Amino acid sequence: MTGWTLPVPMARALAQAEQSAAAGEVPIGAVVTCRGEVVAEAHNEPRATHDPTAHAEILAIRRAAEALGSERLTDCELWVTLEPCAMCAGAIVHARIAKLYYAASDPKGGAVEHGARVFEQDQCLHKPEVYSGMGEARAAELLREFFRERR
Amino acid sequence: MTGWTLPVPMARALAQAEQSAAAGEVPIGAVVTCRGEVVAEAHNEPRATHDPTAHAEILAIRRAAEALGSERLTDCELWVTLEPCAMCAGAIVHARIAKLYYAASDPKGGAVEHGARVFEQDQCLHKPEVYSGMGEARAAELLREFFRERR
Repeated sequence: MTGWTLPVPMARALAQAEQSAAAGEVPIGAVVTCRGEVVAEAHNEPRATHDPTAHAEILAIRRAAEALGSERLTDCELWVTLEPCAMCAGAIVHARIAKLYYAASDPKGGAVEHGARVFEQDQCLHKPEVYSGMGEARAAELLREFFRERR
Repeated sequence: MTGWTLPVPMARALAQAEQSAAAGEVPIGAVVTCRGEVVAEAHNEPRATHDPTAHAEILAIRRAAEALGSERLTDCELWVTLEPCAMCAGAIVHARIAKLYYAASDPKGGAVEHGARVFEQDQCLHKPEVYSGMGEARAAELLREFFRERR
């Protein structure tokens, strides 16, 4: 039997999440691809940078926009290890990300299929295509380990 | 008759919004105060910086957190000329802003009293006190002028 191999961008997002945990930050990683190429990657770093907005998705989106020289990431895809919160879902809308892939869902803080359900609001100007579940077991395991060690 | 004088932080947020319009950015300004002192101010600048997350509130929160050396702005107040969107409301939660003052409400993009209503979600970990309406006529006029000239 051969295990299914994760797409490269999600594997890299999980590797970013592992780096995040090693750095003492909540283990969440994100990657932005544009036409099949990785253009930015990031992990959470609000503690190290004293920046409450420094979630993996925000950093990856900012780095991708800088790399591409555009505030619109119309041809881009975002790969993230956890369901985005309201802040990050809002940033995905503003950046016009075409497709969002996230691993684990997050009933406590997610705002895609939970809570604020940002993309489902009538006022939402841009709805990305959303695919969830790829790599979710590993993404959730990283978070459980991180919080278990800190309890 | 003497007109009511706006509190200084909101007057400065409106001045930031005017600077925003002069720079060709959507006229929205924000100020963060901590125990009565202004610690950060900003206006929208996604166009100039190619950063889709560069809303006035996000920039003001990031600058305040940097100035105070903390990702938590527990003793701080945010003053902004327009009702925050989902991204900015989420950032307000993460930063633990104590009080939010906004001038004009925004049925099209606001996520405090409209749309995603971020602070009203059961999962919301921190709800700031919210006060709206102060300076709203001037804040709304700046936005109308800006979009009228660009139509």
